[in-house]
Amino acid sequence: MKSILEYDSVELSENGRDLIILDQSLLPNEEKFLHLTSAEQIFYAITLLKVRGASALGLTGALGLAMCMNRFEARTMAEFEKEFMRVKRYLSISRPTAVNLVWGLDRMESCYYRSREVTEGRPAAEAISYIQDQLTTEARTIKLEDVKMCLAISEYGASLLKPGSGILTYCNAGHLAVSRYGTALGPIYYAQQQGYMPKVYACETRPMLQGARLTAYELNKAGVDVTLICDNMASDVMARGKIDVVFFGCDRIAANGDVANKVGSSMLAILARHYGIPCYALGPTGMLDPSAPTGSDIVIEERPSFEVTDMYYDKPMAPKGIKVYNPAFDITPAGLLTGIITEKGIITPDKLGTLK
Amino acid sequence: MKSILEYDSVELSENGRDLIILDQSLLPNEEKFLHLTSAEQIFYAITLLKVRGASALGLTGALGLAMCMNRFEARTMAEFEKEFMRVKRYLSISRPTAVNLVWGLDRMESCYYRSREVTEGRPAAEAISYIQDQLTTEARTIKLEDVKMCLAISEYGASLLKPGSGILTYCNAGHLAVSRYGTALGPIYYAQQQGYMPKVYACETRPMLQGARLTAYELNKAGVDVTLICDNMASDVMARGKIDVVFFGCDRIAANGDVANKVGSSMLAILARHYGIPCYALGPTGMLDPSAPTGSDIVIEERPSFEVTDMYYDKPMAPKGIKVYNPAFDITPAGLLTGIITEKGIITPDKLGTLK
Repeated sequence: MKSILEYDSVELSENGRDLIILDQSLLPNEEKFLHLTSAEQIFYAITLLKVRGASALGLTGALGLAMCMNRFEARTMAEFEKEFMRVKRYLSISRPTAVNLVWGLDRMESCYYRSREVTEGRPAAEAISYIQDQLTTEARTIKLEDVKMCLAISEYGASLLKPGSGILTYCNAGHLAVSRYGTALGPIYYAQQQGYMPKVYACETRPMLQGARLTAYELNKAGVDVTLICDNMASDVMARGKIDVVFFGCDRIAANGDVANKVGSSMLAILARHYGIPCYALGPTGMLDPSAPTGSDIVIEERPSFEVTDMYYDKPMAPKGIKVYNPAFDITPAGLLTGIITEKGIITPDKLGTLK
Repeated sequence: MKSILEYDSVELSENGRDLIILDQSLLPNEEKFLHLTSAEQIFYAITLLKVRGASALGLTGALGLAMCMNRFEARTMAEFEKEFMRVKRYLSISRPTAVNLVWGLDRMESCYYRSREVTEGRPAAEAISYIQDQLTTEARTIKLEDVKMCLAISEYGASLLKPGSGILTYCNAGHLAVSRYGTALGPIYYAQQQGYMPKVYACETRPMLQGARLTAYELNKAGVDVTLICDNMASDVMARGKIDVVFFGCDRIAANGDVANKVGSSMLAILARHYGIPCYALGPTGMLDPSAPTGSDIVIEERPSFEVTDMYYDKPMAPKGIKVYNPAFDITPAGLLTGIITEKGIITPDKLGTLK
């Protein structure tokens, strides 16, 4: 099998008629690529978390919509447009909180309107073929931009590493979650390619275990030296001097530089501060949300108790009916971050408070 | 069913011929009391973690040895003594790292020698009956001392609480782990009985989930308001102002006041310091280990990777063969503790460094 970095978790087949995804819900036990050929199959794959990760969902929406329209045989423009709008609406509700998914679909819609304008008055077959090409190109462009963004973040992040650096990472902001290489894991792959042999500690990330199931999987698969720990062992590995830097992703950045990311990120930032270890959030500037002045303005999704008490277990692991608090994210105050690593460079603490 | 506080997780039947334990390995899904009537059954129960917790193991050894000798029908003192030594040695190897188990058995051995001296020259039947009574009394005394110790810790700990206090706790240093009420959970039960209605957040405590399986179970069972969280959510609940004090147990106390406890305890102490929340370790002065000048002199047991990657799961949750670091304990430096709550009182930070 090819190295994980040689294929993508989401891609469009060369002829544009298949959306190929790595089924993340089966990892790490089984590596299975799915060839999706309908909107219904995409919807199902998103709902069942066969594909996940902010960027990956945006790409799934855009590439998936292009695939569906390439396969749709319309006799009239009206028929084509009706189907485009149906698929777009349908995919957009597959995961309500995934802003990237909607963003990707909206960008495809703009492309659709631009292309329709250009082809106005032309024969239906010709116009439809043109629009199909434009949609396919737009979706592939979105992907290329995502790859470029990741590469830039990887390079900036890797500039902070030295040969043998010990890196603590969290959740999965890696190759599987984006177009390629990842944000928080990007610098690790980059450093690995430079022969730096980084030593990574991956927190398992309860309750959904993205660290154990996905990060440990993809780093291991790429030949990176990775050690899995439980989240409550982060303090111990820091105390033992194993960690030179903490890298985690970000789901949203408030205007003052506070970062929303997987719950537990703030714990790592506080531990890193205590032990004098630099701590960075990594993500594209697109994550900046000017509508949130501070982290406390970001609404945190609370998830069902089932994930904590039953998910993945053979039998329930807590008393029936027990109260559970299960926030999906927490807020790391800007003041606890050494910086945010974006595709435009590393934003240092003194600039974090002036983000716009 | 009776409230959990009305029965004990380890007790001797009134006639001294049955050792009755609550099978902790089945919790929280099933409440089953086992009546053990042989050394082999006790060995098996300890090995399979049907009984666990430092004090509970000490009591199991002492009460179990008394039970075995009450059932043993010896014709001569030599026969009786041979069986006593066999059972004692046999039980002592059931869990090699459990110091309380060996401590309990050693105390029974001293009682045996004292009693044998008293009965020297008397007829075998009379001597054996006397020694059996003495052993039973000694084992019950060990248990009473443990109950008294817990009550004292509970009262000192509860003096720090107010009505409605929010308490974060960790692992299981509760009713199930000791003779009664527990060390870290003792003050919670005490406060509950005083009508304080404490609000407890229990960390699930990966990888063995003692918090989810046992602490959430016993607090819930006793009618305490308890909310289960993943360990990585402790920072979030502190940030939201839900926590007034952190209580956790201690497995060993170094001479300088550093505390060894379940891995993740140091994380809680660092987070508590960051948020300005008092943080206490709770345990008997018997946990003090003068042979360890500081925490770094305490050897930390590393446990198998299986516990992190497979234990309790339906399928493995990490890639096969992944490197895992799984320490059972970590060290909380004395300087991060507000104090240690013992049966002799609360040792404040200025005294922590002078423990002997």
